[in-house]
Amino acid sequence: MQRYILTLICPDRPGIVLGTSQGIVDVDGNIFESDQFSDPPTGMFCMRIGFDSPKNLDEVRALLGERLSIFGPHLTIRSESEHRRALVMVSKTDHCLADLLYRWNIGELSLDIPLIVSNHPDCAELADRYGIPFVHLPVTQDSRAQAELSLLGLVQEHAIDFIVLARYMQILSPDVCEAMSGKIINIHHSFLPGFEGAEPYRQAYERGVKLIGATAHYVTADLDKGPIIEQDVTRVTHAKSAKDLVAIGRDVERTVLARAVRLQAEDRTFLAGDRVIIFSR
Amino acid sequence: MQRYILTLICPDRPGIVLGTSQGIVDVDGNIFESDQFSDPPTGMFCMRIGFDSPKNLDEVRALLGERLSIFGPHLTIRSESEHRRALVMVSKTDHCLADLLYRWNIGELSLDIPLIVSNHPDCAELADRYGIPFVHLPVTQDSRAQAELSLLGLVQEHAIDFIVLARYMQILSPDVCEAMSGKIINIHHSFLPGFEGAEPYRQAYERGVKLIGATAHYVTADLDKGPIIEQDVTRVTHAKSAKDLVAIGRDVERTVLARAVRLQAEDRTFLAGDRVIIFSR
Amino acid sequence: MQRYILTLICPDRPGIVLGTSQGIVDVDGNIFESDQFSDPPTGMFCMRIGFDSPKNLDEVRALLGERLSIFGPHLTIRSESEHRRALVMVSKTDHCLADLLYRWNIGELSLDIPLIVSNHPDCAELADRYGIPFVHLPVTQDSRAQAELSLLGLVQEHAIDFIVLARYMQILSPDVCEAMSGKIINIHHSFLPGFEGAEPYRQAYERGVKLIGATAHYVTADLDKGPIIEQDVTRVTHAKSAKDLVAIGRDVERTVLARAVRLQAEDRTFLAGDRVIIFSR
Amino acid sequence: MQRYILTLICPDRPGIVLGTSQGIVDVDGNIFESDQFSDPPTGMFCMRIGFDSPKNLDEVRALLGERLSIFGPHLTIRSESEHRRALVMVSKTDHCLADLLYRWNIGELSLDIPLIVSNHPDCAELADRYGIPFVHLPVTQDSRAQAELSLLGLVQEHAIDFIVLARYMQILSPDVCEAMSGKIINIHHSFLPGFEGAEPYRQAYERGVKLIGATAHYVTADLDKGPIIEQDVTRVTHAKSAKDLVAIGRDVERTVLARAVRLQAEDRTFLAGDRVIIFSR
Repeated sequence: MQRYILTLICPDRPGIVLGTSQGIVDVDGNIFESDQFSDPPTGMFCMRIGFDSPKNLDEVRALLGERLSIFGPHLTIRSESEHRRALVMVSKTDHCLADLLYRWNIGELSLDIPLIVSNHPDCAELADRYGIPFVHLPVTQDSRAQAELSLLGLVQEHAIDFIVLARYMQILSPDVCEAMSGKIINIHHSFLPGFEGAEPYRQAYERGVKLIGATAHYVTADLDKGPIIEQDVTRVTHAKSAKDLVAIGRDVERTVLARAVRLQAEDRTFLAGDRVIIFSR
Repeated sequence: MQRYILTLICPDRPGIVLGTSQGIVDVDGNIFESDQFSDPPTGMFCMRIGFDSPKNLDEVRALLGERLSIFGPHLTIRSESEHRRALVMVSKTDHCLADLLYRWNIGELSLDIPLIVSNHPDCAELADRYGIPFVHLPVTQDSRAQAELSLLGLVQEHAIDFIVLARYMQILSPDVCEAMSGKIINIHHSFLPGFEGAEPYRQAYERGVKLIGATAHYVTADLDKGPIIEQDVTRVTHAKSAKDLVAIGRDVERTVLARAVRLQAEDRTFLAGDRVIIFSR
Repeated sequence: MQRYILTLICPDRPGIVLGTSQGIVDVDGNIFESDQFSDPPTGMFCMRIGFDSPKNLDEVRALLGERLSIFGPHLTIRSESEHRRALVMVSKTDHCLADLLYRWNIGELSLDIPLIVSNHPDCAELADRYGIPFVHLPVTQDSRAQAELSLLGLVQEHAIDFIVLARYMQILSPDVCEAMSGKIINIHHSFLPGFEGAEPYRQAYERGVKLIGATAHYVTADLDKGPIIEQDVTRVTHAKSAKDLVAIGRDVERTVLARAVRLQAEDRTFLAGDRVIIFSR
Repeated sequence: MQRYILTLICPDRPGIVLGTSQGIVDVDGNIFESDQFSDPPTGMFCMRIGFDSPKNLDEVRALLGERLSIFGPHLTIRSESEHRRALVMVSKTDHCLADLLYRWNIGELSLDIPLIVSNHPDCAELADRYGIPFVHLPVTQDSRAQAELSLLGLVQEHAIDFIVLARYMQILSPDVCEAMSGKIINIHHSFLPGFEGAEPYRQAYERGVKLIGATAHYVTADLDKGPIIEQDVTRVTHAKSAKDLVAIGRDVERTVLARAVRLQAEDRTFLAGDRVIIFSR
């Protein structure tokens, strides 16, 4: 028996669950996990099903694809053991990268990381420690366009499923955002929509907030406005300086990003309009 | 179109989801909410489905019951608008009762409360304010058996679905616990399994814990050992006295109990062995 | 022995703690609680001391006032048992008011509430239940100025220390904000600075945030920009509607407001520039 | 100007704050941070003061020691820049060690770590990466006494202030616990007092708790009963296996341990009876 993960998103209408159930019977399958949601504002139906089956991936895709084609869905089916492939981008600050790599290395994330890309050389040693190729791709005003072409080339070459911006401090062009819509995760170091833009911890200090947070979101051309995947906060007091907030925030950032990456790696996120449907367990 | 809530629990085997999907097609239904879980330690399959259908309740029950009977399930189907009926028990401390009644009164809980029962007269006025009949059922060593008979009579008479012990400080006999297994919710004023028994806040103070909590659980004959429905905690410091902890704990208690009552009222809880499966949204 | 609460705020310089310690010796006092903070951005020193002394309030004020006058402080000294007096304002939504009154009634808040003022008659019954005078002060475009004069009159007449806006949906004029700077607490139903303005829960739903919150802050002429006293959040999912968020938010709102009111009632808040120093325990 | 940290614990009586204030004037000092607490059950007064002074450490110690000697205090005074020295012990599981070293390396912990000791060789490479000497000290039934002598020798030799058990899976003898009372911090992977002993996550799974936690506490001869320094929890669901709980718990463990280590490193913990007074900011 093989374990498969199916995801589907399409306009809601009667019969989708029945069709899927029949398809799973077609492949002699048994469901071990199932989530579904019909999103009121968009009318989209999202479904994620884990099932096992004695049939191979091609057969499973053919039989279920046939059953479900009438719904015109965006449909993905993969072996659970076939990991998603993530390219991680970072600048100089390495706490998110270090945390992701630690989790990945002990098997906490079902994910392949074939490549780390940075506009600075600083994290090369960290990448090397985990045996992951590191590409230094400097970005200047003049070289940005060329660097992005190189990036898209690497995405292609390494069959990357999604990109993780683990404190990558460069803005991606609208073209890249568009080309990889729903496939680039950023960690913003504030509880969005509060404190968009630069130096959120300094802003938070000046505003005197009693909680600081972090937000993992999909990257869109509209900076810090992308659909939110995960957020969390931690309590602070007036006695913490802006510099203290930076240190405290690191814990929230790395935790929130790791959760978002795990959700993405396990096909548990669905983009419906500007909101993200999350099937966590 | 009517909205229905279906729950099912039975030993897991292939075909249950397909059977349910077919049944819902039989009743011209459309699913608006669906949750399922197969519990590894017990092998039980739990499912909760919200669907709408133009058919009436009797037809829906007949058609779906037929489709699903081969699985020998414990199956419930009801109109979403037909509320569960809860009997609330209380002693003298009224913060949980006051909170439940406030929520119920503003329509936050989809629940009927036909009756409040207490071993003390103190809460009669509070019940009266919300127009809910209040039964004073004193309990002494000698009258306990008789009082419990009266209680079970009231449960019968008022078609009670479940009992809520909103800080009811009497122990129910094993017979009552058994007769209403999975149908009596208690709020314990600690984060179980820490601080079972009496005066948990005093225990918590003496142990010097940094968080205090509350636990809503099903009542079993084994005191404070029943399956856990919901828990939460709040942070405290060394500077809080045992009396402060009591005050701080009230907030957690009432919140945790209200969440558990809501889950129960909406058929979102499933008892699998000693653990509770929760389908929250 | 009497218990006293002293608060002091003044520009920081050496000798304040020594002067206070000597003053407390002067009154044969013993400190049972002490907090102090020197705020870097403003250079202000904030101190709150609880002490007991056999001397009466006038003596205590005279002797400590003398010791500390060289620092030009804003100094308050009161008996701990002499409660602060709060006027509560509300519109139609009563969950914050109901919660405050419940807490006040069971002695959880060391506070007097001599008066409830509303621009609507709806909460009169609730006020009456707790035996608190209720003043209906309707506000229209034309009557606003007159209504505010009446309000300030009531503040004067009842020796009000601070005002609590417990979901009061009218904007106060800059004059009132100015006249009672640091003495009006509002509860805003979002985690500021996110979702300022109207309908924050609808905004939160549309933005797809994963946590919603509430903020208690001092009212200033600049709407929703006032210094923050307390904040908290609670987790939500994509499956919660904007209406669900309103219900979930009620719990956070009432809890956050109650905490802020308690801090204010116990003289634990200090306004330093645009930030609030909080001496909680 | 030098920055100093003073801690004092002694039976409470009038005059301690005054004496300290005078002593700080004696050294031409200025207080930048001050905390104090009088513990009701033990009658002990705890104080931590940060101050700067132009005098050197010897002078400061002499002058303040003289002022305060009449109170018979346990008194410590050190330069803030002179770090506490921690010996970290670990077995095979390295997430707490890796996290501590990461934080230490980026300067988040004001702490020296002169030595890592383990009963297994597994973490040698991790220690080496950060350039910290690693001592492999195997422990068998027969060698335990000898190993503990070696450990105490290392503590002496390296002028260790406290020991951190970062998932060290050996029990220390009562003699060592006694000798280093209040100076050994352990991380237990449950929310004590729930789930003492072995395999707390398996216990938590079987009990069906809705939150799992971790506890940092001082080690005493009575296993898992030592005074609690810090605790935290995280939410889990029925769908998480015992193995999932282990993974989720790692985040809480490392965070809680890091907070406790920081508190200890900054002299913010005071042992009063079986409870720990914490002066956090």
